[in-house]
Amino acid sequence: MKKTCRVEFLPFRSTHSFARGTNLLEAVRKAGLPLKSTCGGKGTCGECLVRVEGGELRSRASAALPQEVRDRGYTLACQADIEEDLIVELPKFEEQSISAVVGSRYFEEHRDRVSGIFEINPAIRKLRVSVPAPSLSDNSSDLRRLERQIQKEKGLRCVQAEYRVLKKLAATVREQQGVVTAVLAKSGSDWTLIDLQPEPPRTNLCGLACDIGTTTVVCQVVDLEDGRILSTSAGFNQQLRCGEDVISRIDYSRRPGRLQELQTLAVQTVNALAERSCREAGISSDEIYSVSLAGNTTMSHLFLGLDPRFIREEPYIPTFNFVPIIKASELGLKVNPEARVHLAPVVGSYVGGDITAGLLSTPILRDAQQTSLFIDAGTNGELVVGNRDWLATCACSAGPAFEGGGTKCGLPAIDGAIEAVSFTRSGDCEYRVIGGGKPKGLCGSGLVDLLAGLFVHGYLDRSGKIDGERVGKRLVRYGDGTGFLVEKGARTYWGRDLILTEKDIANLIRTKGAVFSACALLMKNIGLTFDQLDAVHIAGGFGQHLDIENAIRIGLLPDLERGKFHYLGNTSLSGAYLILLSERNRQLVNGIARKMTYIELNAEPGYMNEYTGSLFLPHTDIRLFPTVKKLLKPGHKVEE
Amino acid sequence: MKKTCRVEFLPFRSTHSFARGTNLLEAVRKAGLPLKSTCGGKGTCGECLVRVEGGELRSRASAALPQEVRDRGYTLACQADIEEDLIVELPKFEEQSISAVVGSRYFEEHRDRVSGIFEINPAIRKLRVSVPAPSLSDNSSDLRRLERQIQKEKGLRCVQAEYRVLKKLAATVREQQGVVTAVLAKSGSDWTLIDLQPEPPRTNLCGLACDIGTTTVVCQVVDLEDGRILSTSAGFNQQLRCGEDVISRIDYSRRPGRLQELQTLAVQTVNALAERSCREAGISSDEIYSVSLAGNTTMSHLFLGLDPRFIREEPYIPTFNFVPIIKASELGLKVNPEARVHLAPVVGSYVGGDITAGLLSTPILRDAQQTSLFIDAGTNGELVVGNRDWLATCACSAGPAFEGGGTKCGLPAIDGAIEAVSFTRSGDCEYRVIGGGKPKGLCGSGLVDLLAGLFVHGYLDRSGKIDGERVGKRLVRYGDGTGFLVEKGARTYWGRDLILTEKDIANLIRTKGAVFSACALLMKNIGLTFDQLDAVHIAGGFGQHLDIENAIRIGLLPDLERGKFHYLGNTSLSGAYLILLSERNRQLVNGIARKMTYIELNAEPGYMNEYTGSLFLPHTDIRLFPTVKKLLKPGHKVEE
Repeated sequence: MKKTCRVEFLPFRSTHSFARGTNLLEAVRKAGLPLKSTCGGKGTCGECLVRVEGGELRSRASAALPQEVRDRGYTLACQADIEEDLIVELPKFEEQSISAVVGSRYFEEHRDRVSGIFEINPAIRKLRVSVPAPSLSDNSSDLRRLERQIQKEKGLRCVQAEYRVLKKLAATVREQQGVVTAVLAKSGSDWTLIDLQPEPPRTNLCGLACDIGTTTVVCQVVDLEDGRILSTSAGFNQQLRCGEDVISRIDYSRRPGRLQELQTLAVQTVNALAERSCREAGISSDEIYSVSLAGNTTMSHLFLGLDPRFIREEPYIPTFNFVPIIKASELGLKVNPEARVHLAPVVGSYVGGDITAGLLSTPILRDAQQTSLFIDAGTNGELVVGNRDWLATCACSAGPAFEGGGTKCGLPAIDGAIEAVSFTRSGDCEYRVIGGGKPKGLCGSGLVDLLAGLFVHGYLDRSGKIDGERVGKRLVRYGDGTGFLVEKGARTYWGRDLILTEKDIANLIRTKGAVFSACALLMKNIGLTFDQLDAVHIAGGFGQHLDIENAIRIGLLPDLERGKFHYLGNTSLSGAYLILLSERNRQLVNGIARKMTYIELNAEPGYMNEYTGSLFLPHTDIRLFPTVKKLLKPGHKVEE
Repeated sequence: MKKTCRVEFLPFRSTHSFARGTNLLEAVRKAGLPLKSTCGGKGTCGECLVRVEGGELRSRASAALPQEVRDRGYTLACQADIEEDLIVELPKFEEQSISAVVGSRYFEEHRDRVSGIFEINPAIRKLRVSVPAPSLSDNSSDLRRLERQIQKEKGLRCVQAEYRVLKKLAATVREQQGVVTAVLAKSGSDWTLIDLQPEPPRTNLCGLACDIGTTTVVCQVVDLEDGRILSTSAGFNQQLRCGEDVISRIDYSRRPGRLQELQTLAVQTVNALAERSCREAGISSDEIYSVSLAGNTTMSHLFLGLDPRFIREEPYIPTFNFVPIIKASELGLKVNPEARVHLAPVVGSYVGGDITAGLLSTPILRDAQQTSLFIDAGTNGELVVGNRDWLATCACSAGPAFEGGGTKCGLPAIDGAIEAVSFTRSGDCEYRVIGGGKPKGLCGSGLVDLLAGLFVHGYLDRSGKIDGERVGKRLVRYGDGTGFLVEKGARTYWGRDLILTEKDIANLIRTKGAVFSACALLMKNIGLTFDQLDAVHIAGGFGQHLDIENAIRIGLLPDLERGKFHYLGNTSLSGAYLILLSERNRQLVNGIARKMTYIELNAEPGYMNEYTGSLFLPHTDIRLFPTVKKLLKPGHKVEE
């Protein structure tokens, strides 16, 4: 019998050899390929589901995978060992279209109202310059003649030239009668020559805007001359294999070599998406001269390979607030090696660049009179309240429940995710799947709808417990609890029943409770009440369409006039895009970071009280949710 | 019989395998080791002499190597093929002490008179800073607290931090109660953090000053806190194997891959010397945070890997005049990777950084009243005339005769070189050897003395032809001409007769003629006569002690009052040192480069006339040398 077996992984077409008997999940990781698993290989989370396309393997039965699904070739990688040559299909993470979390109608429709500006004035310029030929009477060097001409024709003072440019300078200025395309990057009030091409230019001047989320990463290729978004790609953060949230990644990084691994995974994630985006935009990666990244503090640190452990040790101090400009080549980013990489500034260990950049794409800083609340309910929840003159911020550990983590049926807003759920009069539920087709699970907005629907229809009591009688035929007994059957296996993508368990519900309630109680505490801390807010802006990976009504019904958002709410989608990405677009937005975002007062909730008295009060639907104190109170069914006991 | 043979090269203890029958010179080059050869492997230059310490090889007899020397184990590598395993000793180029060309008494004794300033105010600083501990009430990042403290304690605005520093920032500020040593580099009016060490600092703050000559390279390790020179190392430029002068190196660089090879050799040369200097200074190479290089335009281009071909094509244009600051890591220099590398600015293709830096170590720019002439007679001769208000410069192709090249008996000023020659009344000659011991050859100052002595004693006529009768027993018939026996083989280091041939003499006369005629033409061009000069400063690789009287006797220098002459030694190195020492010298040297008017001699009418007139001892026009005229013997025909 063979001692090593060859396994080809689809869709990557990546073939590797493993010793016979190697665990399949282990093998996938050794091959450096992405596969989620959050139960530690115990066969209970069901996330490492793969399909065996060729060969057979020995796999253990698992509660998380019904026999009929196994019969169709599916297996949990963690429960299978390699016995012979195999062809294994992995979930197509990288190829997924996670388009839903990208844009936001609000951002598109309110360009003139957001805090950032839409002028196209990036810190990178492309100039066509005619360098005069040298002569015996003007023996100035090639560099000096070029710099003089840039000053003369464009009024830009060029004081530095990158070494890479020097190396090709003499040859380039002698092609095409000295007509060249110079690419300049601003440093302070002066400019640095970062590339030189013979005219006609072989290159566009493009930038890469990137939101590095804990779960998903989104990249956009932007034409820096007209501001157009040429392409967008999204994928899972390859660090997912090292832990689902920032805390577990920080813990993971403590062993030797692991910090480097996490950095490599982050850079690989961006490189893969940048490559795809460039291909779709029809440009070469060398034409990306500027990269604008926004991510939470931990993601920013890991992307740079900075030890994140002090982020989670009191007093929770990041290495940097404003990160110096770094060259792409220093980070191993596969764009132009001289591309300038900018990371959005960080306010504290738990309020990072995703928030500072994100605020640029909200109207909060437009007005000194209007006070707004900004809620970014990602894996970590971050909140900002303020206006043009002042900003206060805090963070809470929400968990990834609205981004597809922490629940059995949760998914990021990818194709196949249920993004909206509505209940019919008869109490039956209908849903809409992103991209059409059979559902794989529910994304954040779907979960909010589902939870609200179950609650309003009396299927759940106020603590989130399922009322088995009311649910009726959709009640599922599952493992150690009960659940609500969203869809039968025969009609789902994976062939498994799609179930929202009581455990999932508890998780969702904890998440919405963490966000709401943090909001309440922040407002209390600055001496405002919710009804003094002029607007509430919501961001996060819920999906394209968050139903505000349902979000209020479950107590995630305060019960205010509906017109005050705006769902903004991925503000971090929009902010990174704005920073790419104009030098002034870069100054604006630095100003935002400097202006923000960070409030450490853990240090606030009353934190636990607020939180536990929020662990009900919609809240222990029903008076806070008058419009929800009216909807309560007889089963929804209220003690006022 | 074995097909491959192993050869160990001493003193490098470097062992390599070669196919049987490989030419030994070829083998040395394949091994990447230094060995001079200028005749193209014809066995005539005698420069590739090696000693076989173990094994035997088949070597062809050669006119350049007497049989008795071959019997003692010496052979010309180009005339030998490898037949068996060998141990071969190469001339110890790298280990040589070329101390003679380093310093200059003038520079040491006239610190307060030279153009550069001796203040210690480098563009690199080392600061001891106490970073306040973070707290829940001050959650500023590590970087911000550090930058704030640098501003507060030292008044320096730190606006950038290198990525390498970011990576160790968090850990370093948490050692030693936040007391750290920060290393900062100036960029514009702000500072960049380039290193961070826990206190007490493990590092000195050192710099490397380096003169990259076409033939020899000299490095000095300098303590940037007190300006002390900690060590000095000199060695041959490893590019020598690719050609002896700048023109042949430029030609060599034209084939693919050769430019890279030349750059690698230049960097290797500096790395080897820097390593030796650091070892001698007792510091680690990581403690070198600043590098100041001065070299001619071609050497500067080759060191940076910039295509030098436009330097020798009309209109002779260099890539740069002022080179941007480059990081050591970009060049592969083995010092601190963040060390800032500064190259002295270049005026034209034939007046480079060795001259602009060199002027710093002369008094020329001190005074607007005194007009001085500066002569750097290296392989290329460069001349500058002027004062504080104006500078005019030109270059001439002098050839390497005064630096040990182009003559049979010539050597750089290394141990074993004759540096001074005097003739007794009886016409016999005496000499002084650098480092004592048996002579290997003559360095520039020795050749000047020898030529002047031979001329004054009537052994040479004014055209440089040997008068065989007068020379008597020291006359040698050698190859296709005659020569003067300086020392018998029995008393020389290599066991070969040390002979100055008529060809050598012609070469020396061409060199001195090129320098003098360029001086005369430059003076004429700016409308001055020699006697209007207040001082003449001489630099170049002649050796430690150039006898001015003898230099005038051969017509190298104009016949002026002797007190006006100052021999300054290696001004390029002194200039590089001054630039290292103070930011203001860096500005000064840039000002020097901007101020200089470059005169292209080839374009001047009368150039050939001037030159041919100078091809006599001391000159066709003896009226130019009144003090020499008095010494003429009857054989020295004069037509006035």
